[in-house]
Amino acid sequence: MTDITQIEAAARRLAGHARRTPLLSSPFLDEIAGRRLFVKAECLQHTGSFKFRGAWSAVSALPSAQRAKGVIAFSSGNHAQGVALAARRHEIAAVIIMPADAPRQKIENTRALGAEVVLYDRATEDRDAIGDALAAERGLTLIRPYDDAMVIAGQGTAGLEIAEQATEKKISEADVLVCCGGGGLTSGVALALESRAPGLRARPAEPEGFDDVTRSLATGTPQKNAALSGSLCDAIVTPTPGKLTFPIMQRLCGSGLVVSDEEALRAMALAWSRLKIVLEPGGAVSLAAALFRRDQIESEAVIALASGGNVDADVFARALTYAP
Amino acid sequence: MTDITQIEAAARRLAGHARRTPLLSSPFLDEIAGRRLFVKAECLQHTGSFKFRGAWSAVSALPSAQRAKGVIAFSSGNHAQGVALAARRHEIAAVIIMPADAPRQKIENTRALGAEVVLYDRATEDRDAIGDALAAERGLTLIRPYDDAMVIAGQGTAGLEIAEQATEKKISEADVLVCCGGGGLTSGVALALESRAPGLRARPAEPEGFDDVTRSLATGTPQKNAALSGSLCDAIVTPTPGKLTFPIMQRLCGSGLVVSDEEALRAMALAWSRLKIVLEPGGAVSLAAALFRRDQIESEAVIALASGGNVDADVFARALTYAP
Repeated sequence: MTDITQIEAAARRLAGHARRTPLLSSPFLDEIAGRRLFVKAECLQHTGSFKFRGAWSAVSALPSAQRAKGVIAFSSGNHAQGVALAARRHEIAAVIIMPADAPRQKIENTRALGAEVVLYDRATEDRDAIGDALAAERGLTLIRPYDDAMVIAGQGTAGLEIAEQATEKKISEADVLVCCGGGGLTSGVALALESRAPGLRARPAEPEGFDDVTRSLATGTPQKNAALSGSLCDAIVTPTPGKLTFPIMQRLCGSGLVVSDEEALRAMALAWSRLKIVLEPGGAVSLAAALFRRDQIESEAVIALASGGNVDADVFARALTYAP
Repeated sequence: MTDITQIEAAARRLAGHARRTPLLSSPFLDEIAGRRLFVKAECLQHTGSFKFRGAWSAVSALPSAQRAKGVIAFSSGNHAQGVALAARRHEIAAVIIMPADAPRQKIENTRALGAEVVLYDRATEDRDAIGDALAAERGLTLIRPYDDAMVIAGQGTAGLEIAEQATEKKISEADVLVCCGGGGLTSGVALALESRAPGLRARPAEPEGFDDVTRSLATGTPQKNAALSGSLCDAIVTPTPGKLTFPIMQRLCGSGLVVSDEEALRAMALAWSRLKIVLEPGGAVSLAAALFRRDQIESEAVIALASGGNVDADVFARALTYAP
């Protein structure tokens, strides 16, 4: 089980490798939110999302002989790029298993970061069988996207930074809204805040129709989403909360917040206009919740962890149509 | 004449008020630039551009009795917003004289930051006469956009940060490309680097057709642009180098670099894709020069000061058509 000691150890391993991302704000956004609003801009992290933290944490924690054989991951998105860059900087091999119909740009980016990309056909091939065979053959270590103690510890370093930055800004009580898929970031941040800033409370933010964590927290048992795709917020669509992450979220998090795809696009437009940062829909749901669910927030200040900015130009152009 | 002592004093006045903006990078951009490339993201400064630094520096340097009467500025853009926010945070009045045909959004933003906006008709009214009358009547102090020692000192604080950040990244020699209009930012940064990082050399970057500083440096005497408008890079279009800024640039700067509007748009697309930041065309010319004028750069590393991100949605959508 991940704890604060592991998060602090991850922070030491990440020092000088991950960016300490800024906490941004704008008087225009404060007005919409009806309170002081701060945005932790993890889109400015290496590879454009927080995923680099967990990937670096996991890769750097491996025993060196095991690490030298390389790592493997399943991902068509942000986790792929995080693992690829973490592996390259450790000078080890990374194999990323991606669906053949993943966006060309994501495949190319992952390759350009030095990873070997293995494509499979979603309809006819078994992803796990391909991965298991490769891992066994080459001795690769699987880096899971969220259900891994070292990954959770790495994501938790964003929470350590939020605790420090909140102290600098004299924020002692706030809701910290976190874009939530499998819950690696949310649970890591919740653990960091529990120890370092007990007046700050993590709360998951999710897209409509994919609010498994919100419903799981409300009912006390893990819930599943009806669909597996169909949200613009593809980066944070997962079927059900993680086995390791859910108990942490259940113990520490406030209730979840749910926003529509259109609200995520509106939040992207406001982040573009008022903060000059690029968010992807799944990385903007926390900001959307801070801006458009003000009646569900009680604290005097709110911090939105904007988790990533890897978005296609056509989706971003759609968001721009909502620009003020 | 501005000197390092004044820049250091400005930095003390700005502490806790201006943001220390990050120095970002991407392996994808390094490859295009053919060397290590770093971007000083001043678009993340308050009001979306470096102008807040100079405005705060000038407003905070006024004797308190004089400051209490308020300030006045002529601007339709970034300087207007910088002065408006600096004045509001000092709890004093700001009057901004803007052309009546300025973009509605810029007028509204300036008003929303608490300034009194006075509109004039470019065709029939004399801007200076309106400003002089208001200043005399109310005892307002004029804050000039660049030909002001305290404004130059404030912009120079970005150079102090670049010097510190370069040291952290072990960069001892680099060209520092600066988006250049009247030269307030370029001259301030050049002064800071002269004292704090003598291996780093400031060089102005300008849009085609508005390369008055580049030509002035090349010829040794102040040159004028043929046109007064007609570039997408409106934020940095000025008729001729400043009286205070030109001698500083002449003494300290390397030769200028000139890029096209299309190259500025391409740089915006790459900043969007690879760094997740929003740049305006005039704020991207330095990055465009770093990416697309590699044969005019000799140093092993290049730092592009990306000066602002206040851009209309339709122009940004045009830039997105160049996204990789």
